Amino acid sequence: MNAVGVVVEYNPFHNGHFYHISQSKEKSNADVVIAVMSGHFLQRGEPAVIDKWHRTKMALQNGADLVIELPYVFSTGHATLFSEGAIQLLEAIGCTNFAFGSEEGTIHPFLNTYKLLKVHEEQYNALIKQYVATGISYPQSLYKAYEELRETEQSQTIDLSKPNNILGYHYIEAAKRLNLRIEPMTIPRIQAGFHEDINTESTIASATGIRKAIFEQQSLEKIKQFVPEESFMLLADWQQQYSSFVQWETFWPYLRFAILRNTAEQLTRFADVSEGIEFALIKAAKKSNSFNEFMTQLKSKRYTWTRLQRMVTHIYTGITKEQLHYSAKPSYIRLLGMTKNGQAYLSQYKKQFQLPLISRVASTNDPMLLLDIRATDMYALGVELASGKKIAVDYQTPPIRL
Amino acid sequence: MNAVGVVVEYNPFHNGHFYHISQSKEKSNADVVIAVMSGHFLQRGEPAVIDKWHRTKMALQNGADLVIELPYVFSTGHATLFSEGAIQLLEAIGCTNFAFGSEEGTIHPFLNTYKLLKVHEEQYNALIKQYVATGISYPQSLYKAYEELRETEQSQTIDLSKPNNILGYHYIEAAKRLNLRIEPMTIPRIQAGFHEDINTESTIASATGIRKAIFEQQSLEKIKQFVPEESFMLLADWQQQYSSFVQWETFWPYLRFAILRNTAEQLTRFADVSEGIEFALIKAAKKSNSFNEFMTQLKSKRYTWTRLQRMVTHIYTGITKEQLHYSAKPSYIRLLGMTKNGQAYLSQYKKQFQLPLISRVASTNDPMLLLDIRATDMYALGVELASGKKIAVDYQTPPIRL
Repeated sequence: MNAVGVVVEYNPFHNGHFYHISQSKEKSNADVVIAVMSGHFLQRGEPAVIDKWHRTKMALQNGADLVIELPYVFSTGHATLFSEGAIQLLEAIGCTNFAFGSEEGTIHPFLNTYKLLKVHEEQYNALIKQYVATGISYPQSLYKAYEELRETEQSQTIDLSKPNNILGYHYIEAAKRLNLRIEPMTIPRIQAGFHEDINTESTIASATGIRKAIFEQQSLEKIKQFVPEESFMLLADWQQQYSSFVQWETFWPYLRFAILRNTAEQLTRFADVSEGIEFALIKAAKKSNSFNEFMTQLKSKRYTWTRLQRMVTHIYTGITKEQLHYSAKPSYIRLLGMTKNGQAYLSQYKKQFQLPLISRVASTNDPMLLLDIRATDMYALGVELASGKKIAVDYQTPPIRL
Repeated sequence: MNAVGVVVEYNPFHNGHFYHISQSKEKSNADVVIAVMSGHFLQRGEPAVIDKWHRTKMALQNGADLVIELPYVFSTGHATLFSEGAIQLLEAIGCTNFAFGSEEGTIHPFLNTYKLLKVHEEQYNALIKQYVATGISYPQSLYKAYEELRETEQSQTIDLSKPNNILGYHYIEAAKRLNLRIEPMTIPRIQAGFHEDINTESTIASATGIRKAIFEQQSLEKIKQFVPEESFMLLADWQQQYSSFVQWETFWPYLRFAILRNTAEQLTRFADVSEGIEFALIKAAKKSNSFNEFMTQLKSKRYTWTRLQRMVTHIYTGITKEQLHYSAKPSYIRLLGMTKNGQAYLSQYKKQFQLPLISRVASTNDPMLLLDIRATDMYALGVELASGKKIAVDYQTPPIRL
């Protein structure tokens, strides 16, 4: 059996994801699709709109055969770390290929870009330094340095201003740097851009657009056309049970409590909290009555929204710099769910996996897994605060079977 | 002007307190009554039923001329520490006497007990050791050792099984040990015992009984006869504004969150958390849906309810062992409120106070005062969680004037 891997958040699962899975399977001639999915806290420093169990079901209902969890260490990390974790896990579980969606749509320009930056590494770094010195932001400096190099290049390279191209590039870079055997593929994204509002004449919308519609409308009707029917049912189930979807506002009372329970100095112990912002965090938390007010006070040229959200993620979960030691190597494969086909794949190959397969977390001392469990517990408390209802937690929940 | 000091929690203020204040003033021939009052977290490890501003008003309306705050470090401490803080503050603000309520009712037996234990200190300690070695609890061992010594003594000594006698003894012991000039007095307590239920044929009930009635009835009617009219009005105001009175159950969601956001090892950093209980704290927090469930799971011979409550107080406020360094010396006199008479006393004597008088905490680096502010902030968040309403916080609140 041949397996293709996809790196996903499914926040929530939509028609574009369905298209991506089916294309990935078809183009790779795979028998099995394996999704490595972030748990409850995501790459842009946000809690997922619904829990990982519901999102696992959505994936299994729509073409994924196995869903494994991207550990918290990686799922909340910057692009390099995120990619290292995800691609190593797909390699460890035996995928021949990984397939990512991109604006570019074909793989060669990615490989050309990788080669260009590899060959001119020194020059590239020097250019970045020069741009940073002029006072422009680091991401902007990266982009300008790349564009300058790119002008000298004959072969086709990718546009690194497109978010999915950037992620794809990081996947490839991680696979190459770590000498993995897994091969990259890309599937062109269709229609919807990344941050766009939903377009009622289409059946494709971005997850960002869908979330925006959910929170603004407080209703699911507007998004019905953009998600598979089973996913819609799961979203509706969640809404009925927990009243609302999860966003930082839901967790705001706990987040504020978590911030104000520290001295400024103690706040800097939490992962990703940069020295110098601790006083501003406390001041903003004291003054604000909502997450949005809080963030608006903190946002500046120096601290982007995403960077701030990553800090508050770790403050919320209570995870310190010492705990999130940026281990670049996953230590387990955590199974969240499987179809019958996925189960057949596991039976056949699990002895060859490069990492232990974990189906139940009943008792563990693995520090990386303990962080996943903590993140789930803290997410569960936040949902319970808002809804008065409990969600499934790691200790009691076996993998979902479909 | 002559000042007499009283050490109080006023949780809430009742007729017994009124009697105690007026007797203290009369018997000491004082012109001014100064109350050193605990802030939001009290000696038995509990949050106060209403905030310190309301309790200050109650005191000023009923005979106290000045209310100063007993810092968190002392107000949440064991009897020795609590007494050291309170009596030193009363000395620092110029009180000639302090007057405590006791079951004993006259001062000589207290002084005899103090002398007895001082003279036979070695023998006393040896006896305690012997009793502890037989497996009985430390407080029980203290008591038995004392009773054994007491049998050999001719003069009248106090019964140390009575809670107010114990506290009074600690006040005297602190004053003597620290060589303070302030002189002890005692006022006999009338009628109500300490832990009794309320008795509808009396106008005196213990604060414990009154709190029990408030929480069990969810109504103030039952306690009307036991509190001065103005205090009743303030309690009714609070109830109208904040729906309910504060108890640990009110803060339970935050407390659970605060516990589960730590590893077992991290939990032991909080003040008073004994090594060895950290795993039980986490386990109980995970399993429990209320504070009462949580405590019932934790209580054991080794850990009394009060000791456990002190631990959770510090976990709730986020105050570590390092922060609560058991400084035995207050560093300021924090003014919470004053009558005109109290104000006259301040004008006349404040230059002679042994510690700086703080009326506003606008900007401070005093680590002891920062803990008081933290405690208020955390108490305020808990009240807001339950009621959706804010209470006065330290930075914005000047002393109450009556």
